[in-house]
Order: sequence, then C-alpha cells, then structure tokens
Amino acid sequence: MWEEWAVTQFVDDTFVCDPPKTLALAEGFRFTHGERIAPFEIIYETYGELNEDRSNAVLVCHALSPGAHCAGKYTPDDIKPGWWDGMVGHGKGIDLRTHFVVCVNFPGSPWGTTAPRSLDPATGKPYGSRYPWVTVEDMVESQRIVMDHLGITKWKAIAGNSLGGMEVLMWAALHPERIGALICIAASASVPVASVAWHLIGRKLIQSDPAFKGGDYYDSPDPLRGLQLARMVGHMTYLSNEALEAKFGRRRRGGTRQFEVDSYLEYQGGKFATSYDANSYIRVQAAMDEMDLDEQFGSLQAAFSRLRGKALLISFDTDWLFPTAEVARIEAAMREAGVDVAHLDIPTPNGHDAFLIDYHLINPPVQELLASL
Amino acid sequence: MWEEWAVTQFVDDTFVCDPPKTLALAEGFRFTHGERIAPFEIIYETYGELNEDRSNAVLVCHALSPGAHCAGKYTPDDIKPGWWDGMVGHGKGIDLRTHFVVCVNFPGSPWGTTAPRSLDPATGKPYGSRYPWVTVEDMVESQRIVMDHLGITKWKAIAGNSLGGMEVLMWAALHPERIGALICIAASASVPVASVAWHLIGRKLIQSDPAFKGGDYYDSPDPLRGLQLARMVGHMTYLSNEALEAKFGRRRRGGTRQFEVDSYLEYQGGKFATSYDANSYIRVQAAMDEMDLDEQFGSLQAAFSRLRGKALLISFDTDWLFPTAEVARIEAAMREAGVDVAHLDIPTPNGHDAFLIDYHLINPPVQELLASL
Repeated sequence: MWEEWAVTQFVDDTFVCDPPKTLALAEGFRFTHGERIAPFEIIYETYGELNEDRSNAVLVCHALSPGAHCAGKYTPDDIKPGWWDGMVGHGKGIDLRTHFVVCVNFPGSPWGTTAPRSLDPATGKPYGSRYPWVTVEDMVESQRIVMDHLGITKWKAIAGNSLGGMEVLMWAALHPERIGALICIAASASVPVASVAWHLIGRKLIQSDPAFKGGDYYDSPDPLRGLQLARMVGHMTYLSNEALEAKFGRRRRGGTRQFEVDSYLEYQGGKFATSYDANSYIRVQAAMDEMDLDEQFGSLQAAFSRLRGKALLISFDTDWLFPTAEVARIEAAMREAGVDVAHLDIPTPNGHDAFLIDYHLINPPVQELLASL
Repeated sequence: MWEEWAVTQFVDDTFVCDPPKTLALAEGFRFTHGERIAPFEIIYETYGELNEDRSNAVLVCHALSPGAHCAGKYTPDDIKPGWWDGMVGHGKGIDLRTHFVVCVNFPGSPWGTTAPRSLDPATGKPYGSRYPWVTVEDMVESQRIVMDHLGITKWKAIAGNSLGGMEVLMWAALHPERIGALICIAASASVPVASVAWHLIGRKLIQSDPAFKGGDYYDSPDPLRGLQLARMVGHMTYLSNEALEAKFGRRRRGGTRQFEVDSYLEYQGGKFATSYDANSYIRVQAAMDEMDLDEQFGSLQAAFSRLRGKALLISFDTDWLFPTAEVARIEAAMREAGVDVAHLDIPTPNGHDAFLIDYHLINPPVQELLASL
C-alpha cells in the first residue's frame, strides 16, 4: 500500500538497457586507509554510445542506497527502472541520444562490487567486519579505474545527488583536469553537524543490535532490526515537515490507533533491511560524515583552486540534511577560485528527496548546462 | 565534561525546600483506560505559603523527564536545585513571596508516584509491563486529586512547558472553572506528525532492545541501551540546528576522530538511561502523542469553549518539536472562544529547551500575567 509513496518514481517511457558490466581487478583494490582486497570486482553500467573522440561521456555518481543501475530496465517486464531514470534517458535531462553515461557501483556498497557481504575466496566466508572502512576518495578511485578502463580521458560532465554530489565535489578537488563540468545536487563539501548526529545515531542503532555481532552476522537469514530502525531515522531526515504533514498528518490507519506515519516508516525500513546490508550502511555513511574538504585541503577555495570546468550547484529549500547555506558556501568558494559556477536553490516541499521527484525542476538546468558545453 | 551543556541551569540564589509529600490513596488510582492500581501513592511538593482564602495557589505541571521537585534544594549541599528553579522562587517569575506553588509527580513518571518500577504489593515484583498506558487526562487527574486534598477550589494559575504545557491545555478543556489563568510554554494541543514520528522511533528503540523483555527487565541491573539511544533521538529534537552548530559544529574530541556531538549524545543518553525508567519513558511519551484536543472535543474552539481565565501562550521560533504555527492555532481557537489570550513567539537559538534556559525572556511575561490577576 505504500508503493505510492516510494521515493523512486515510475517512468513508463524508459528503455531496455544492457546488463551490468564487471571489471575484474586481479591486483585488487587499494583503499585509502591502506588495506587491499584482491581480487576485486567493480560493477558498472553504461547507457548510450561513446562517440569516436570519447568526448560525450557523463559520469553519474550514486548515493548511499542505490547502485550502478541508474537508468533503463534490464527487461521490459522489470517493475522499476534504474534509480535516476527520470534524469537519464532518451530526450531527458542527460540525453542518451547524444551522451554516453557511466555509473559505477562504489566499494562498500552492497550492489555487486566486492562488498562486506561478498565471499572472501581465502575463507569462503563474507568479509563482514574485516572489510575496510571506505572513504569518498575510494568511491572516486573506483570511478577513475573504470574511466581509464573505458579509455576516457575527460568526462564531459559528472553529476551526482546527496553522497553522489559529495563524490562530484571530491572529483573536482582530486582530478579537476578530467572534468568538463560538474553537477552537484543536494550535497555539500562536508556533512553539517545536525546531519552527522542523525547519521551517528543510525549507525549506533545497527551496532547496538546484538544480532549485528560486530558485523559478522551473515549466518543468520533474518534482516537486522537495527538496520530497519536506522533506515527509519534516515527516512525522517529525507522528508520535509511539509511533506510529512501533507502525506500523513496525525492520521491513523483505518480502524486502528496506529499512526499512518508509523506504518510508513516500518514499511520503508523493513523493505530496506531485507535488501541492503548493514555493514555497507555503516561504512558508506561513515565515509560521507568523514569527508571534509575544508579540513582536507585547508579551505574550500583551495580544494577547488584547480577546477576549470563549469559548475552547476542545486539545493532544495526544504532539504535540511544539506541546507542551502552549505551549498552557498561552495558557490562562494568556487567563485573566489575563479570557477564559472551557478547555484540554483529550488523551492519544493519534497526535502532532500527532491532529486528523485522534481524532475521538471532539475532536468531543465542540467540540460541547459550540457548544451552549453 | 558535559555538565556545562546540561539543560538545567544552575541557580545559586535558591532556597531550601520541604521534602516531597506523599498522598496515599487506599482506594487506588483509576486510569482513563479503566485499570485501577490500589493502593496508590502520589508524590508532590509545595513551596511558599497558601494564603487564608487559598487564592494564591499556582500549579506547575512537569514534562517527560523531571518530577515534582521543581524548585529549591532539599539541603544546601544539593548539587542541583529543582528543574524550574529559574522560574519558581523568591522574587522570580512565579514569586514565592506571594504564591503557593504545587507540583505533582504524575502517574507513569518514575519519580516517586506509583510507577512501572514500583513494587506491586500483591507480587512483590515491579508492575513492569502490567502498568497501564497512561493518558494526559490521568496526569491532570492526579493533580486534581492533590488539589482537592489541599482544599484548593481554584488555581490562581497553572503553568507548564512541553508535555507540562499539554497538561495545562487539558486542564483548560476539562476543568476550566478551576483555573484563574494558564501559562502554556513550548506545547500544543496535539503533537505534530514530525515530532510524533521521532517519538515513535524512540519508543521502537526501547522496545526493540532484547534486554527490554517486553517491559519486564527489572531483574537486570544494567541500564538499557535502547533507552540511551531513545534519549539521544530525544535530545536531537530538543536542540536547534543553530545550537548544534554553535556548541559542536564538526569538531572532534581532542586527539581523536570522534565527533564532539557524538560524545555529547552518548553522555546525555547514558546519564538518562541510568536514572530514568524505560517503561515510564514509553508510557509518558505515548500519552503525549495520543493527546489530541481537536479529535477529543471536535475542535480546538470547542475544547476551550468554557475557559474564562486569561491565557499566556509562549512559543520559541527555533522549537521544531512544537512549532510556532501550532501555538498560533491554539491562540486563534482561544480567541474565537472569547478567551483573553496573548501569544508570545520568542526568538532564541535554544530550540525546545529554551524554557529551561531563557529565563530572562520568559519570566517577565509570566510575572506580568500573575500581577494582572
């Protein structure tokens, strides 16, 4: 019954995409903190055609929950298309008639790339607690490896939302020469303290669940209640108060005293806990919280000092996970660094989730930016 | 180290008060939902002197966390005074030189009145899961019983913050003829959905902790991690983002990578979990969420239709647990019902907790109201 509120929008006019591709790294993947996992597999997807001079490639960076499947359906019968299908498609914001889109499942995420729940060939058991704590640099590095593998020297543009937008900013700081333009939506150069606190609480809920067993819980088939609860906290931070009032108010489920919002949160949390992986959740979210471009580069302006491509920053006025003021700070730093930057603060009742809902508001500026390159 | 951030302010110019008083009800207490616990004890405190015609009595209604000890110190050596000592005292907002103040520990709360952790004389064990689910009406009823016991016909005024303010509104609806004036601070006639959702999540954290054992956990001496986590969620809802930025930002604890806000939340949650009781927490908070004067009386205007005393409503512009708009709704309903009402929306960075911090802002209007009666 809650499908109507599901965040990913159903778009009927989608296309049939290729299955995911695998890049096997025999030498393994080396994490920022020094660990190496070998062998290591990176899963990615591509859509559209790479042109002859390889100048039409767009990288889409995914956020915490989704994976490399950002557009299309594997078969026409799939119930849902990829997670950003409203943006990526033929005639859409990132137009596949003229662009080649790449989306890479980053290390730590549970959707195909070697992850905490992957089997360690040395032991035949999941890596579990032994999987490294990833960083946003690791995410960018996995995307760079795929980029080189595909023979792409420079992305025409890179785009991402939420954590994906933080990856975009990390690209701008680490590899500015390899980016033609960037699109950063609902993200900032570090997570502000209120959002850090909610993230921390979410991780504590997982780690305090005795069934989590320090991360080595894969012998049990049951979804973790701690992960379900953490997702409820997460959902609350994605929704604006306006959306909560409009969708639920203080309404009860028919014939019961249960609040509708209660039923909704349990449903969304439960769905997530049966598919996502708790070890991935705590690692990916911690990576988000640890990223801090001010701290890492001395200042935001220093972080963006080598960036020469155009930048489009989009914030949403009801997003309190990444408030507009944080995005304005990036805008100011980029401007001082001489970057051609535009910041669009979009009024919407949809909070942080607007990047998965308000395509009529975010696609036109993205289209315009790409057309201007 | 976190004492500096403790919510209750230290006030040195306080007085030595009487010890708590006990009202033993041999016939027991009958709860709204029909259960009776007998015998039953109600704990309350009084400060100041009741005048001859018993016309100077002010009821202070407490919120979720504290109890009947709202002002003074039992001995000069007490580290902290009562929880609203900044308001109640000699020469303070509710001036004990001219007023007699009563504060009643309500049923469900763990601070003395027969509670879930009290021993059931029939079994010699705590009531635990068998303790009834309380309502705000039950809280008001316990205060009415003490009022009658003290021979007070009409309160000169009643005052409360947060849940205490909700009790004040319930008094206005149930016993308007027994109130000379009301002071309702940081509260509304029902908890708005965003706050309900955070409350629900907090209760789920307790109830999902295996050590909670459905409420019969008293054989273990350990504090419940679920209660500690719930309190962390609660704390987040009490603090404004401004306060979080000012107090913590993204700062780390000296020499570590631990965020200061993390350390703060663990400290506050831990302190709470070792003193408060989980069965009380879930019952008192559920009572708060269940109260809905619109639903109960058909409309807010109907709820306040018999009220004739003056009303002072105070909201805080950074309180997102009880936003200003909710208080404005009460103001409008009271006005339509012909009540002499004033609504003060106070700008402060201190969020919901402002009623325990900003005495320089809330005492003057309270003083003024009492002087006008």
